[in-house]
Amino acid sequence: MTLKVSDIGEKELVKYIQANSRTITQDDTAITEFGSTNLISTTDMLIQSKHFPNNMSYYDMGFKAVTVNVSDLAAMGADTLGFLLAIALPKDLEVESFKQIIEGVLSACKYYQIPLIGGDTNEASEIIITGTALGLTDKPLMKNTYNTGDLIAITGNIGFSALGFEIETLNNVYTQKALKPKARIKEGIVLKDYASSATDITDGLASELYEIKRDGFGFMIYEELLNVSDEYKTLADKLNMDYLDLMLHVGEDFELLFTITKENLEKLPIDCRVIGEVTDSDVIELTLENGFVEKIKNKGYEHLC
Amino acid sequence: MTLKVSDIGEKELVKYIQANSRTITQDDTAITEFGSTNLISTTDMLIQSKHFPNNMSYYDMGFKAVTVNVSDLAAMGADTLGFLLAIALPKDLEVESFKQIIEGVLSACKYYQIPLIGGDTNEASEIIITGTALGLTDKPLMKNTYNTGDLIAITGNIGFSALGFEIETLNNVYTQKALKPKARIKEGIVLKDYASSATDITDGLASELYEIKRDGFGFMIYEELLNVSDEYKTLADKLNMDYLDLMLHVGEDFELLFTITKENLEKLPIDCRVIGEVTDSDVIELTLENGFVEKIKNKGYEHLC
Repeated sequence: MTLKVSDIGEKELVKYIQANSRTITQDDTAITEFGSTNLISTTDMLIQSKHFPNNMSYYDMGFKAVTVNVSDLAAMGADTLGFLLAIALPKDLEVESFKQIIEGVLSACKYYQIPLIGGDTNEASEIIITGTALGLTDKPLMKNTYNTGDLIAITGNIGFSALGFEIETLNNVYTQKALKPKARIKEGIVLKDYASSATDITDGLASELYEIKRDGFGFMIYEELLNVSDEYKTLADKLNMDYLDLMLHVGEDFELLFTITKENLEKLPIDCRVIGEVTDSDVIELTLENGFVEKIKNKGYEHLC
Repeated sequence: MTLKVSDIGEKELVKYIQANSRTITQDDTAITEFGSTNLISTTDMLIQSKHFPNNMSYYDMGFKAVTVNVSDLAAMGADTLGFLLAIALPKDLEVESFKQIIEGVLSACKYYQIPLIGGDTNEASEIIITGTALGLTDKPLMKNTYNTGDLIAITGNIGFSALGFEIETLNNVYTQKALKPKARIKEGIVLKDYASSATDITDGLASELYEIKRDGFGFMIYEELLNVSDEYKTLADKLNMDYLDLMLHVGEDFELLFTITKENLEKLPIDCRVIGEVTDSDVIELTLENGFVEKIKNKGYEHLC
């Protein structure tokens, strides 16, 4: 039997590339030393049928293509330097729709104060947008440089996009978060001077925790601290979905997940929510509201699976 | 009638983006001042059905994805800094084919001495590779900074890829150039100290000449200097194709097209071929071997047409 890429999945493919390249880092982005600072570069490809919900506007597609890339800069504590846009369009796309995509891209560039500096246009059977974001930071914030006892925190609400993808009506906070996510670039720049590590939540909290885990370290997350509202639970229930599954295993919130010492948390000048702590248990666990402890599954969004 | 993107074509779409963004340059790449040097960044998306001939190996696809991006650095006279790879694969692609693509990418990175520093993986209905190349140069070589009287020159042979795409047999210089093009990165670094302007030949000589043309300036190309071999003419004839059309209007050679003063040409330490000169005629013309002069048509490869 011939092995197909879908038999092994995205994570194994990435591992193969990393194992064969001595120059690629394991972090969210590339770090290139540059005098007294560091050039941060990152690229993310969005494909219409995979990354854009059916009810997403062309404007929001363009905005999101910038957000997903800027979010990687945010996770490194980098300030923005420039954005490159490679875009492929179907031949029969209306010019007006193309203009709306570009308006979304340019609005996002303005919002994040990252200049659009270059790009490429192409033809494909669906809309494909590859962004590249460049940034600078004197002190790159790595994703796995925490210590036992550090607190685990997030910048905003998680699970909102996950629920929003499932809801058909547009005027609610969940769908708005799913269709119009924002990267936490300002928070990232603050966090680099306070946090011990950070990453952005793309593929779900569970997936990111496994991504940042080092041997000998564990994480304990407390459901109580996740602060799941009754409304959230009710909506998930109506959709026949498990609310904890939505909270932990879907992602696309683009919030920052970071670790911080108790001392630094007191000084931190931005809003955040502590959701757990770094342990030496070597496992990733959740203390449920009822007091039971269960292992969090290593399950999140993965392409080619 | 609703206007589709194919009604206006790639060039008009690019113009729309440039007109709406004050931060995008008109050159091949983005230039960001950085202390005493300049960060050069460029992105190019390759789509299997558009950019990879049917007889191209997976290894060569990976190699080409690096070449097209490094070629843009070469045109700016930049040295290589880093390469980012965003790649989408069909689910049923064999793992072995994926490994060959990556081998091609890594071989190209080694060949051009540009480290692979990051990337992204995705799923799509065909192979899509977006590369981003980063480079540095103290003196960016612009594409339209020539003067009347400058000579027009190229680094190697043009039209070879164009012919190669049409020939089915593999063991000839034309097909080899079409399947395994190389970027002129070393030549670009030399040229920045001698040439008055440079660009790379992606979409054909004619298209690039129109791309670099400024108001009030013209170009005269001499067929005699293009040095078209009898073999080339015979092969084109057998394919019922016009050899000058292949030479001028197809591209994918990734040679550098540059302008240079007569004085600097004498000192230039790399091989090149002078093919014409910058005039004040305001038109782009070709002097045929028979002495007649004709206008070169503004026709080259363009997506979404």
